Amino acid sequence: MKVSVIMGSISDKEIAKKTIEILEKFNIEYEVKVISAHRTPDKAVEFVKDAEENNTEVIIAIAGKAAHLAGVLAGLSTLPVIGIPAKSSTMDGLDSLLSTVQMPKGVPVATVAINGGENAGLLAVQMLSLKYPKLKEALKEYKVELKKQVEEMNGSLNF
Amino acid sequence: MKVSVIMGSISDKEIAKKTIEILEKFNIEYEVKVISAHRTPDKAVEFVKDAEENNTEVIIAIAGKAAHLAGVLAGLSTLPVIGIPAKSSTMDGLDSLLSTVQMPKGVPVATVAINGGENAGLLAVQMLSLKYPKLKEALKEYKVELKKQVEEMNGSLNF
Amino acid sequence: MKVSVIMGSISDKEIAKKTIEILEKFNIEYEVKVISAHRTPDKAVEFVKDAEENNTEVIIAIAGKAAHLAGVLAGLSTLPVIGIPAKSSTMDGLDSLLSTVQMPKGVPVATVAINGGENAGLLAVQMLSLKYPKLKEALKEYKVELKKQVEEMNGSLNF
Amino acid sequence: MKVSVIMGSISDKEIAKKTIEILEKFNIEYEVKVISAHRTPDKAVEFVKDAEENNTEVIIAIAGKAAHLAGVLAGLSTLPVIGIPAKSSTMDGLDSLLSTVQMPKGVPVATVAINGGENAGLLAVQMLSLKYPKLKEALKEYKVELKKQVEEMNGSLNF
Amino acid sequence: MKVSVIMGSISDKEIAKKTIEILEKFNIEYEVKVISAHRTPDKAVEFVKDAEENNTEVIIAIAGKAAHLAGVLAGLSTLPVIGIPAKSSTMDGLDSLLSTVQMPKGVPVATVAINGGENAGLLAVQMLSLKYPKLKEALKEYKVELKKQVEEMNGSLNF
Amino acid sequence: MKVSVIMGSISDKEIAKKTIEILEKFNIEYEVKVISAHRTPDKAVEFVKDAEENNTEVIIAIAGKAAHLAGVLAGLSTLPVIGIPAKSSTMDGLDSLLSTVQMPKGVPVATVAINGGENAGLLAVQMLSLKYPKLKEALKEYKVELKKQVEEMNGSLNF
Amino acid sequence: MKVSVIMGSISDKEIAKKTIEILEKFNIEYEVKVISAHRTPDKAVEFVKDAEENNTEVIIAIAGKAAHLAGVLAGLSTLPVIGIPAKSSTMDGLDSLLSTVQMPKGVPVATVAINGGENAGLLAVQMLSLKYPKLKEALKEYKVELKKQVEEMNGSLNF
Amino acid sequence: MKVSVIMGSISDKEIAKKTIEILEKFNIEYEVKVISAHRTPDKAVEFVKDAEENNTEVIIAIAGKAAHLAGVLAGLSTLPVIGIPAKSSTMDGLDSLLSTVQMPKGVPVATVAINGGENAGLLAVQMLSLKYPKLKEALKEYKVELKKQVEEMNGSLNF
Repeated sequence: MKVSVIMGSISDKEIAKKTIEILEKFNIEYEVKVISAHRTPDKAVEFVKDAEENNTEVIIAIAGKAAHLAGVLAGLSTLPVIGIPAKSSTMDGLDSLLSTVQMPKGVPVATVAINGGENAGLLAVQMLSLKYPKLKEALKEYKVELKKQVEEMNGSLNF
Repeated sequence: MKVSVIMGSISDKEIAKKTIEILEKFNIEYEVKVISAHRTPDKAVEFVKDAEENNTEVIIAIAGKAAHLAGVLAGLSTLPVIGIPAKSSTMDGLDSLLSTVQMPKGVPVATVAINGGENAGLLAVQMLSLKYPKLKEALKEYKVELKKQVEEMNGSLNF
Repeated sequence: MKVSVIMGSISDKEIAKKTIEILEKFNIEYEVKVISAHRTPDKAVEFVKDAEENNTEVIIAIAGKAAHLAGVLAGLSTLPVIGIPAKSSTMDGLDSLLSTVQMPKGVPVATVAINGGENAGLLAVQMLSLKYPKLKEALKEYKVELKKQVEEMNGSLNF
Repeated sequence: MKVSVIMGSISDKEIAKKTIEILEKFNIEYEVKVISAHRTPDKAVEFVKDAEENNTEVIIAIAGKAAHLAGVLAGLSTLPVIGIPAKSSTMDGLDSLLSTVQMPKGVPVATVAINGGENAGLLAVQMLSLKYPKLKEALKEYKVELKKQVEEMNGSLNF
Repeated sequence: MKVSVIMGSISDKEIAKKTIEILEKFNIEYEVKVISAHRTPDKAVEFVKDAEENNTEVIIAIAGKAAHLAGVLAGLSTLPVIGIPAKSSTMDGLDSLLSTVQMPKGVPVATVAINGGENAGLLAVQMLSLKYPKLKEALKEYKVELKKQVEEMNGSLNF
Repeated sequence: MKVSVIMGSISDKEIAKKTIEILEKFNIEYEVKVISAHRTPDKAVEFVKDAEENNTEVIIAIAGKAAHLAGVLAGLSTLPVIGIPAKSSTMDGLDSLLSTVQMPKGVPVATVAINGGENAGLLAVQMLSLKYPKLKEALKEYKVELKKQVEEMNGSLNF
Repeated sequence: MKVSVIMGSISDKEIAKKTIEILEKFNIEYEVKVISAHRTPDKAVEFVKDAEENNTEVIIAIAGKAAHLAGVLAGLSTLPVIGIPAKSSTMDGLDSLLSTVQMPKGVPVATVAINGGENAGLLAVQMLSLKYPKLKEALKEYKVELKKQVEEMNGSLNF
Repeated sequence: MKVSVIMGSISDKEIAKKTIEILEKFNIEYEVKVISAHRTPDKAVEFVKDAEENNTEVIIAIAGKAAHLAGVLAGLSTLPVIGIPAKSSTMDGLDSLLSTVQMPKGVPVATVAINGGENAGLLAVQMLSLKYPKLKEALKEYKVELKKQVEEMNGSLNF
């Protein structure tokens, strides 16, 4: 039960943190690495080769601008790859979103919202829950928690 | 090992067909339904309640314009939900894409490319392969097939 | 003569305040609630069921990103639903706008400008004025007030 | 119980037809006119002056490109104004949508989807239903009809 | 030789200032007013009626969001109307630009860049130079000035 | 009283035709040329040098894609330059619009709608009317004609 | 003096043809291959390894949607890589353009216009002309040819 | 072995600095100038005439908004021209990008990312490496350096 969180650059660290908090909350083992599709393409190949041996079951890739990382990993692996488009200094994340989600036939990337670190983590948990039934219970509890958060918001309203 | 393919409207049928072809190729049981988040909201609730009992493991939702279907199902269920933004008569699918992918914290939708029927199917297979190891083998064979297709393209080039 | 102002999240509070100021100015009763289309879908159903009994005549929904709230409430209710797209941290509100306004045939949402809290309130007053003639007078006075504001702007010009 | 449907140009006729079909379905009196915000500005002023005397209760305005018609009528009238952005030969309707929906503080336009003729009609019916209770029943029946349409779609599926 | 600079709101003041600096530089008489297409439509009609009598020869209109001001004035007048799309708090000025430039056949607005106060002033000068030959000389001197500015930039470079 | 209509390519001919029809209607002398900012830059310089001697008073430039023609001519001349962004095979004219309208400080281009051939012609007439009063009368008659066209549209309505 | 033209899919063939016509015109040796960044990643690595040995001096990559091909090749090679964004069935080529041009620091892709087959070829010739002086002469002749084409357009005008 | 870095305005200085750092790193001679396509068009012509005599081999042009500089230089010269779209105060650089990259047939501009100063420098080095083999070695070392940077990022991770 292990997830690999791959960042295209150290600048994606804040997004990765949000992913990791979710993974820790659900007691899922994880590793975090910086691998650049463009600057360390051989590391990408190597990582994917090792991933299955290391029991990685889901890959999460975070990248900005011409965000090829998730797509490149998806091209190399048969594991499900979740892509998080990172907002960069221009284009408000639209470049990252389109580069991540508009994958050609045959090589899907499961794309979440721009900077959507938490949701990438949750999606990984949902995928893993197919195999590990106890995660299903945890996800149901999490849904209850979400409801409580909204109820608390209602309690704090004072107009 | 069952996938539910939900369309927001009968007009999404061609996209659903591409999804189903992939599911059949990988011998995965599926059901196809039209459920509208806006016109039959109670059916959406009912479907999600029945889904687990009916052994649905992954939900695929196809919708266009203000595409709320995938998000609404993801709000109701703890199963992984894959969203396919359908291109409608205006806006070239940008409205569907943003409505599907930009989900708030806590409720992810695994979004694929606009009209990306095949990739939604493949992503479902990858998710299921976490639990059903024989699908892993099938996915590896599929990757080989993709390579062969590209090789054949090279053979047919005559400039 | 009552309006329900529903926020998708507490973060939409500043927009709701602008709506409420207008409703108070026109002496219209209102309630404010946080209901998330994705995190508390059952609350949405419950709210709509109660709304008519509670004499709600117009619903105003505020939401950002993949903004499904207004559409979901419009799917459940026959009351007019006004949608305010909230600008979130990315995409400058375009995602919220398209998710709110591009509703499919059969389920309209009366969409106002991004972050348009005041205008949502005013639109509700205009709708109510069909039934409550004294609001018509108030709206005419408001138009005079708007003119005076512009005149005052002219008075303060010094180039 | 009367709705005025105003087109910016005869080229918006197909959209107006969809609005009218809805109004006829709900037995609502209507008039249809071509009034251009730019080419016949005096007609716009005149129309609004006459509208209340003629018992118009809701105005629907259809316009494309730099679509000022709905906004101009909303500036002149205290009646609720519904705007339909018409898709023109370029920009896929984005220009019309932004010109219609992004109204400044004080003068709302209730905007529906690009080319959303039916929904503009339905929104008018919802507004009128505040005053005319029998329309509420008709709207509930219409919702049942929408559900039936979706059920029929399900019946016709054959994959 | 007079130019009327019309702002849709006092918030457009900074842009108007840049226009006025250019008009003063070329010794062109001007007036500045706030007139809202939506909040003071009668003032717009009145202004245009008075404009020719007051010897206004060019109108410059500044407005943001659903920027109808320039188009409305162009519909009322046969004077050339220059439109400056103002960047507002959302959409980065794209809404203002499209609302100003995408005018229908028959009613042109001479649109300059978003927030392009100076260029609106210069364009007015160029138009007036058709009639007032001494402005032609002044414009040629201005072009020389622009060149000198660029040369000075070169002088100040130190890499 | 002469206008030069410059196309960036022969493919802009249909747009130029619409401009010319307007110029002929107002009895304005014109010349039409193909000059490419990129392929015949020396012709652009030469044209501008000759333009004043040839009594050209307004320049209209039509170009698509990275539409530099209007801007380049405006950089060379002190005559008012009207730019028509031409829709090309991709990007729906957005590239042409932004390349034409977003001119830097000091060098304005009077931009009209995408493919707006008629309006470019009309804007030229309005500019010339500053100097040639009889054009003012003609423009007033044209406005009456526009009104009649709208009235005829009303006459032909049959719903 | 050799250029490798790599297509992401056989569907990019028409664009490649335009590139090849230019290369043949300038007597430059070329090879054409289909290599998919996602479906045949190992072929991409292999191709780059062989490229220098095979005397490839410039790489041209054509791809659509989430167009990673040019970026992936640029990550693997030190040769200059020219990217042609291909317009696909949705998004009008914006996805391809942003995926190709928005490369991160350290790994440039020389991007030309959407579907810009000819210009990619010409850019390759310009690069090669640094080393092969006779190409400089040929490029100068080509510029003369472009001018002649424009002159011929002028000859064929008849308004 | 010389590169000319041309800025459209002194405000592009920070981007130019990033380009120059790369050129210095690779020991490439350079000159930096401000030349405006619109304000000093004759300087542009003059510069290009002198460029070859001065042994310039690659031109890099930086410009924002309606960014014509790179295209204008490419129209005048047969040297390869690299364009850097500069992000300006509105439109997030989209105007600059489209104005730079969407060049018509016959006149390519090698476009890099918005504000992509480093990559423009690197692309120039890659072009020059065709002629100067020692740059090829330097580029290979640079790729190793990039990898090391990524490795160091990995070393500094502490989650």
